[in-house]
Amino acid sequence: MNATDSTSFADRLADAVGRTRSVTCVGLDPRLDQLPRAIAQLADGGSPDAKAAAYTQFCREIIDVVKDRVPIVKPQAAFFEQLGPAGMIALGDVIRYASESGLLVITDAKRNDIGSTATAYAQAYLGTGDASPWGSDSLTISPYLGRDSLEPFVEVCDRRASGVFVLVKTSNPGGGLLQDRVTDGQTVYGRVAELVSELNQGRIGASGYGPVGAVVGATYPEQLAEMRAAMPNSWILIPGFGAQGGSAADVLAGFDSEGSGAIVNNSRNLIFAYRREPFVQKYGDARWQDAVSEATDEMNQLLLQRFSR
Amino acid sequence: MNATDSTSFADRLADAVGRTRSVTCVGLDPRLDQLPRAIAQLADGGSPDAKAAAYTQFCREIIDVVKDRVPIVKPQAAFFEQLGPAGMIALGDVIRYASESGLLVITDAKRNDIGSTATAYAQAYLGTGDASPWGSDSLTISPYLGRDSLEPFVEVCDRRASGVFVLVKTSNPGGGLLQDRVTDGQTVYGRVAELVSELNQGRIGASGYGPVGAVVGATYPEQLAEMRAAMPNSWILIPGFGAQGGSAADVLAGFDSEGSGAIVNNSRNLIFAYRREPFVQKYGDARWQDAVSEATDEMNQLLLQRFSR
Repeated sequence: MNATDSTSFADRLADAVGRTRSVTCVGLDPRLDQLPRAIAQLADGGSPDAKAAAYTQFCREIIDVVKDRVPIVKPQAAFFEQLGPAGMIALGDVIRYASESGLLVITDAKRNDIGSTATAYAQAYLGTGDASPWGSDSLTISPYLGRDSLEPFVEVCDRRASGVFVLVKTSNPGGGLLQDRVTDGQTVYGRVAELVSELNQGRIGASGYGPVGAVVGATYPEQLAEMRAAMPNSWILIPGFGAQGGSAADVLAGFDSEGSGAIVNNSRNLIFAYRREPFVQKYGDARWQDAVSEATDEMNQLLLQRFSR
Repeated sequence: MNATDSTSFADRLADAVGRTRSVTCVGLDPRLDQLPRAIAQLADGGSPDAKAAAYTQFCREIIDVVKDRVPIVKPQAAFFEQLGPAGMIALGDVIRYASESGLLVITDAKRNDIGSTATAYAQAYLGTGDASPWGSDSLTISPYLGRDSLEPFVEVCDRRASGVFVLVKTSNPGGGLLQDRVTDGQTVYGRVAELVSELNQGRIGASGYGPVGAVVGATYPEQLAEMRAAMPNSWILIPGFGAQGGSAADVLAGFDSEGSGAIVNNSRNLIFAYRREPFVQKYGDARWQDAVSEATDEMNQLLLQRFSR
């Protein structure tokens, strides 16, 4: 979007899903030890600047491959932060390049704080044009601090036509430790879902969705169905597909009756597809971009079955 | 510390508290609209670089004032991130300057993720010398994702003699929404405290404390006493003192029988002391550093009563 585009994030995402007929979110998780040889060479010398240049080039080439195939990409802030300020400059570059290529962007940073500190995080990452130094369309956030930690983010979403994805039920094995605890018949993740729905009140756009999305893992299909019903106006970002074990059948429950309302993230199985079969044989390291392309098309095909529900 | 110092963070903090006879943590939360005039002038023009230069100078001058008065400072990452990459360079500069001045540093970034992504955050922020681009002694982290989101941080603490402070019971009004929910007689924050204690097992140093600290707000004195007992080997970082309403009496329950084991954060009432009485009259804008100095001494005096418990 450009700075004057006031279409809500939720509506822009619905448009992008419709246009690409894809619900795939490509996770941009650059890891130094898994980069294709031609990219890894850019990091030679090992300075943060050299590594950051390699991450930027890797992500740009992925964006070139997927830009007309998927609606959205999700850079993982941690890998960029690991490189220090040089990495944070690269993160901004990757986000801008994705936006200019017509993709929506979720910055996966799982930020959280309260009051004016939460507002500072929101202003840092949300909103394109000159509003924000990093310029993402949306941001993942964590709910442990409660309602007053989410509201400042939502207020910035209102002003900047952007979105957030609140961690609700995560895909990792240990996620249940706190999230699954039941009080008076309601789980912690259920309480977060209720809060997410409350925050969307009065903010629902033409697509039927509001700015406050939710993260619900593919690895818990029953809870995904429960959460789809509990948050009818929230985009659901579904991690855990592919490398973490979630299948296409597992994620179906996340979609609405029109096959929309959710996006399914896949990181390493797409961006590092060249390292797994059949792509190792077929393309090898030299044609790693072809592996990204074919793996992305394959995932899109698998998820087309959502329309026949 | 230098890169070869392998004394644990917990023991270094105990030493610093003993040496300074202070448990005050000075929160470095630069806010553009509250800077003293001489500092605000550095931000003239409004470029991120100019604002970052103002933040750096402000924090450096505070560090000069408090370096022999307190054991530790806590820069708030959000305010630096809000300035984009220029702010992140400033954050690194402020952390380095504090370390070189003999202060310990908590980077307040409330990071959280799982597996190798959590490791990337830990490697970004924890450990001094060349190990980490930002080089903090410790980092605040959020527990919503469960045990497998905390363990990667603790493993980096082991390797880099650093520490974490896990959000347990926060000081904000909305903190109870999830944290206070009771399941089988145990609150969510109580479950997090149990996990914190488990993670310190086998990691307890000469001071009696381990690398896994906890954040417990000053605004809930009864819960602070409960949490002191539940986590006997954890340093407690107590926010909410001063501006948020917590008093010296409120925080006493956070200390062990020797008046150690906890640090009390204060941000705006110290760093922006020149904006409140009696300092407005006494020092005004021009001598804002004297206000920081006197406000810090005053807080140290108030907290000396912990020795008479």
